[in-house]
This record gives sequence, C-alpha cells and structure tokens, in this order.
Amino acid sequence: MTIDDIHAYMQTVGRQAREASTAVARAATGAKNDALLAMASAIEAGRERIQMENQRDLIAGRERGLSEALLDRLTLTDARIAAMAEGLRQIASLPDPVGEISDLKYRPSGIQVGRMRVPLGVIGIIYESRPNVTVDAAGLCLKAGNACILRGGSEAIHSNQALAACIRTGLEAAGLPQAAVQVVETTDRAAVGELLRLDRYVDVIVPRGGKGLIERIVAESRIPVIKHLDGVCHVYLDERADAGKAVRIAVNAKTQRYGVCNAMETLLVHEAVAAGLLPRLAEEYTRHGVELRGCERTRAIIDCRPATEDDWRAEYLAPILAIRVVDGLDQAIDHINRYGSGHTDAIVTEDYGRARRFLREVDSSSVMVNASTRFADGFEYGLGAEIGISTDKLHARGPVGLEGLTTQKFVVLGDGQIRT
Amino acid sequence: MTIDDIHAYMQTVGRQAREASTAVARAATGAKNDALLAMASAIEAGRERIQMENQRDLIAGRERGLSEALLDRLTLTDARIAAMAEGLRQIASLPDPVGEISDLKYRPSGIQVGRMRVPLGVIGIIYESRPNVTVDAAGLCLKAGNACILRGGSEAIHSNQALAACIRTGLEAAGLPQAAVQVVETTDRAAVGELLRLDRYVDVIVPRGGKGLIERIVAESRIPVIKHLDGVCHVYLDERADAGKAVRIAVNAKTQRYGVCNAMETLLVHEAVAAGLLPRLAEEYTRHGVELRGCERTRAIIDCRPATEDDWRAEYLAPILAIRVVDGLDQAIDHINRYGSGHTDAIVTEDYGRARRFLREVDSSSVMVNASTRFADGFEYGLGAEIGISTDKLHARGPVGLEGLTTQKFVVLGDGQIRT
Repeated sequence: MTIDDIHAYMQTVGRQAREASTAVARAATGAKNDALLAMASAIEAGRERIQMENQRDLIAGRERGLSEALLDRLTLTDARIAAMAEGLRQIASLPDPVGEISDLKYRPSGIQVGRMRVPLGVIGIIYESRPNVTVDAAGLCLKAGNACILRGGSEAIHSNQALAACIRTGLEAAGLPQAAVQVVETTDRAAVGELLRLDRYVDVIVPRGGKGLIERIVAESRIPVIKHLDGVCHVYLDERADAGKAVRIAVNAKTQRYGVCNAMETLLVHEAVAAGLLPRLAEEYTRHGVELRGCERTRAIIDCRPATEDDWRAEYLAPILAIRVVDGLDQAIDHINRYGSGHTDAIVTEDYGRARRFLREVDSSSVMVNASTRFADGFEYGLGAEIGISTDKLHARGPVGLEGLTTQKFVVLGDGQIRT
Repeated sequence: MTIDDIHAYMQTVGRQAREASTAVARAATGAKNDALLAMASAIEAGRERIQMENQRDLIAGRERGLSEALLDRLTLTDARIAAMAEGLRQIASLPDPVGEISDLKYRPSGIQVGRMRVPLGVIGIIYESRPNVTVDAAGLCLKAGNACILRGGSEAIHSNQALAACIRTGLEAAGLPQAAVQVVETTDRAAVGELLRLDRYVDVIVPRGGKGLIERIVAESRIPVIKHLDGVCHVYLDERADAGKAVRIAVNAKTQRYGVCNAMETLLVHEAVAAGLLPRLAEEYTRHGVELRGCERTRAIIDCRPATEDDWRAEYLAPILAIRVVDGLDQAIDHINRYGSGHTDAIVTEDYGRARRFLREVDSSSVMVNASTRFADGFEYGLGAEIGISTDKLHARGPVGLEGLTTQKFVVLGDGQIRT
C-alpha cells in the first residue's frame, strides 16, 4: 500500500488506537478470550492465503538478496502457522491480569487502600522479520487490555497484512473494535519516526530486534521504551561448585542454542578449581565446535586463543566463549557488574553464603544459583508468555509477560471519610 | 561555592554517586538505619548552625524580593527542624524494602523462580525552595538502597548545605560513603542541564516543583523521569449518593487545603440530585470563601459565574471550584477521562454497580469511592513516606514511597537444572 502522507496516516492510526484502547481496557475477560480464539481459528482457516502472501515476501526477499537465515525466519510453514494459532489459545487460557486488586488493607483513617492492575493504554511494537511476532504481540497486548500499533519489517509486509486480516476477523467476531490491533500498512521507513513521535496517543514502545535497531529507536523516541540491549551472560564456577553441575550448566548455557540473548558468553572459574574443571570443559566445548578465548591463567591450563578486553564485553551470539580465571567471588561479581549487560548471570556453588551474596550483589535482571542461564525466559519463569526481556530497570526488568504490559492504580474504598 | 567547570564538577558528582551506590545497595538494614538516626541527631545538634545558614538565605531572599509565601516556605523554624529529624527516625522505622523476595515458586523444570526487590541505583532529585526536601529525599533514597544527587533551589543553597553536612555526619557515623548523598554545591543553573545528561551514572530523575520546572526537565532529560504534572481532581456526586457523605466529601476535598495537588478542582453532580445538593453546597463553599464557576445547568440552580472550557482543565490550587451537572455516570467518567489529569478522582454513591464501574473505568492514579480526594498521599495510603505522586503510568503511579525507588530482579534457585 502506498500512502502519500505518512504523517497524516500515522496520526490517524494513533488516534484510532487511543479511541479503541478505552473499549479494550473495559472489555470483559470473556470477550478478549473469544477474540483470541477467533483469531486462532481465522489463522488456521486462512492458512493457504497466508502462505500465498508469505510467498510474495519470500520471492521479493530472494530478489533483494536476503540471506538464507533471514529467508528461513520469514517462512511461514504449516507448523509455524499452527504454532501461532496455538500461541493465541495459550494466551486465552492465561488468567486476565486486568482489574486484579491486591493488598487491599484498612488504614487507621478507616479507608481501605489497595492496588488495581490496569492496562497501560496503547503499545507500539517495532520488530523485524519474523511474522509470528505480529500474532504474539497482538495477542499479549489484547489480553492485557491494551490497543497496539504493530510495525513489522518491510520484508514481511504481505505476510503481516494477511495475519492482520485474521486478527481483525477475530476482534470483529468478539465485538471488539478492529483498531485495537493495527498493523502499519506501509513499508515507508518514515512511519517508524512518526510512530516514535505519537506521544499524544502511545504510552510505551517495545522494540524487538538487533541492538542497532533498538539504539536508533531509543535515541529517537519521545515515548518511553521498554528495551532489550545486550545479553552478555556469565556463569561463575565457584571454588565450592559441584563438578558435575558445573560442567553440565556451563556446557548447556553455552551450547544449547547460540544465537539467543540468554546464552552464556563469558565463563568465570575460581582459581582453585580451574585446573580440575577447565580441561573437562575444553573437551566438551571442542566436541561442540565452540571456539575458546582465555585469560592468561586459563591459557596456562588449556590451549586456546588469548582473550582481549573486547572479549569480556562481547555478545558473540555464536559458538565462541571467553574464559577467565578469577581469585574468588569478589572478583567474579566485580567482573560481572563491570563487563556484563545486566541480563542473566549464574553461580554454581554448594556454599550457602556465597550463593546468597551472588543473588544480592549481582546487578542483573536475572540472577541464578545452580541453573543454566538459558532458563531466563517468560515461559520457563511461569509468566505464561513473553513480549521480550527488558534490560532496563524502570517498570519492567527481565522477561516481560502480561504483567509488564499493565500498570497499577490505587483504589480507595470509604464510607464517607474526610481528611482532617 | 563558585565552580569554574560545571561540566567536570557534575561528572565527578555522577561518578562518585555511581561508585557509592554499590556500597549503599549492599549495606545492611542496620547500617542504613544507624545512618538515618545519626543524621537526625546531627540535625538536632546542629540546629543553631542550620538556622544561621538559613538566615543567610532569608536575607538574600528578601534582597532579591522573594514573595512572603516563598520566604515562609524557606524558613527553618525550630518546629520544622524537629520535624525533619522526626521524619528521618520514621524512615528508619520502616521495613527495609531491599532484598525482599516474593512469589518464589517451583516450576515444572524444578527451578524455583521469584523476584527480589533491589535499589534502582542512583537517583537525581531536582526541587525548589523547601529545604526539608533535602532531608526527606536523602532519607528515602538511602533507605531504598540508592545513592542520590540532590539539586535544590538557589534560594535555599546555604540551608541545604548546612543540612548536607549533617547528612554526611550521619553517613560517616554508620560507615557508609559520604558520596551516597551529594547535595550539588553550586547555584549555577547549568548544573541542572549537566545532571539531566548524566545518563551514564544516574538511573532516574525525580523533579519536585511547579509544572513549568517539570516540563522543562522532561523535555531536556536523557534519563527517565518519574514526574508529577497536574492534579485536576474530581468528585462525582452520583444519583444514589448519600447526601451527608456527598456534602462532607465535596466540602473537604475542596476546602481542607487549597494549594495541594489532591484538592478537588471540578465537582460533577448527577442531574437528579443537583437541585437538592447544590444549594447546600453553595452555602458551605460561600462560607469558606470559595468562588464557584458553573455550567448552564448549575447556574439554573445556584447563582455563580459561568464556567468556560478552560475551567474544566484548570488546576486552580486556590479557593475556586468548577461545577458541572451531568446526565449520569457515563458522562461523569467521560468528563474525568477527557479533562482530568489522571491524578485522583472520587465517586460518592451507595450504588454497588456504579462504584465498581467508576473504579475500573476512570483512568487515574487513584480512584476512590466515598472518600475525599485529599487522602491521595503516601502516609495516608500506608506507604510510610512519600517522595512524590506520579502521574505517569510506567514504573510508579500515584504516591511513590520506598517501593517506587526500587525495582525487582528475578532470582532463580536450582540444583543443577539445564534447559533441554
């Protein structure tokens, strides 16, 4: 779709979203769930049409010379379409966070004060190639009572519009306004800039994509951004680590998947156990094809490339691992707080006091004892779903589920109390 | 104090705050409380010196032609100094929010997942004339485990520096770094601009002051701001309002104090009860010297000036009240969500369903049934203290106590679990 006046178009999108947000915020749980289930059915029923539109994106992508990896992420197979529908049904089955009242307590004045969970309002989501984000994000925003504006990548425009049609069908079936979920209909990059200036209508921006995209959005946005930057995650193998757990966790955190933000990028090893553990680990990593880069003390024990200062800050997202031998817990915590990205860090230890100190003193969104960093995930944490992982501190930190898409207001119940 | 290079000075302040924040975040509850109690004692012991410095500010203020109201707010009487010390002792008696772990639950994978409350890091506070904010803010930030940078008004510079000396004495007595609380030592306005660009060191800015100050800060800041803009609060007297409660609440919400953000500025009255209630209310308001401005339907019942569109949006902070007669609950809610500032709004009704709808549908930080809007306050809500009231939606909404100065991270406890 070609739109002549992007500014006017995005203003309309914003205004419509704001108007729809009132209806969505007040919608009964049943109506929201009906819409989610109807969207799932519409996606299943529309599979052939969605795949036809997806083909257009794939053909255009090949012409534009997109990499095979990107084309793969863009492809909507039968299984992926089924997974999208299933995802919506799962969101429908989650408890509704909206309206939940907590901590309602009587005060000396006689009033009762508590908090009610309420939607944020309008959420703008800016993302790249995977079309499933369109469906996930729409479902999560709707369940949390928000209207949303979705701006996917230009390479997925036809797929996203086909999915948007199914989403609208679902909204209509449940009597909810179609503007509750709007997928931006133009690939013009100016639309992103316009979206980031819709502070009159949009309450928060959630970008999903590479660090470059996110940094541009943060720099440009007039609207608060819930963002995920680096995932430079650490595992620290303490002097009192159980060797079996240490090897199992250190191998899993690095090798279970490479291109994910919660994969370990730097391994820290206590000097007292380095000579015992590093050779075993090196063998495992070599078997998995992981390239090792070590500090001097590491290289005195195992054969690997030297690590530089850059390696301590690197988010490889690849089969590469930096290794440093440390004097003890203090140095491990200092290293993590200095070089880490505040994402997810784990200690492996059987020592109660050190576990306790690590949990308190490591300043990251997830801190773990004797578990793989790969668990940092909304589903694994029991949030039911995840719109992303926040490396910010304000509002939402770590995996963001439905709760992160809401806020709380105070409710006060009285029977005529006045302030004296 | 004259500082030649404001940029370099503020960079140093920022760096020192960041360094101190680690120690404060790890400080034991006992050490923080010791510091708070020692600050209180130092303020009491230093009363004469504080008042001498305060005199310097008052003399300079008179020379500069400050209004009597401003000079009054600036004056540190014996009672106000005692109140500051008492405030610190109260903060010491509050439970420590830092390190509190909640919702720790087992997941199917065997890991236990919960949330730990942790400090934000470094908080920048920018405020105007009242020197007691220096002490309040320092105490709250410290108890919540944060370092802080305080930038008071130039008219209070000597008073604030005298208080800062007492605060440092308290920190030192408890073995905490003096840089945990830094009061900016220059009145140069460039220091505010520099503070707002210290995004490398400062996690959040809390401005306290008039709307003009806050809007300038939001426009200029590179750091997230927890802010309070208008307080255009409403009371809606429903058709099923108890007449006694209606009058009591409507009078209290307007007249108990005028210059406060939680005072009512617009009264909405259901048409069915307007003729009965408005004459009684007009009599009360007239007795209190409140000027009334009404819609046409109001003016058909009582004698008052006509209200304009501007009156519906006005935060008078004065003995003036806008009154509108509405058709019912829908119009009342629409009026509040359209003209209000999302601060605090109350309904007076004995009707269960309307009370429930008002609580859910009014999009304000505090929504009340049968209670005066004047209760919107951290102490009244049981937060123990208040750094301000947020009209934002993200992170903190409504009165902000110690909890609003913290965030939560995820803690994961395992015994060797890996992701499969």
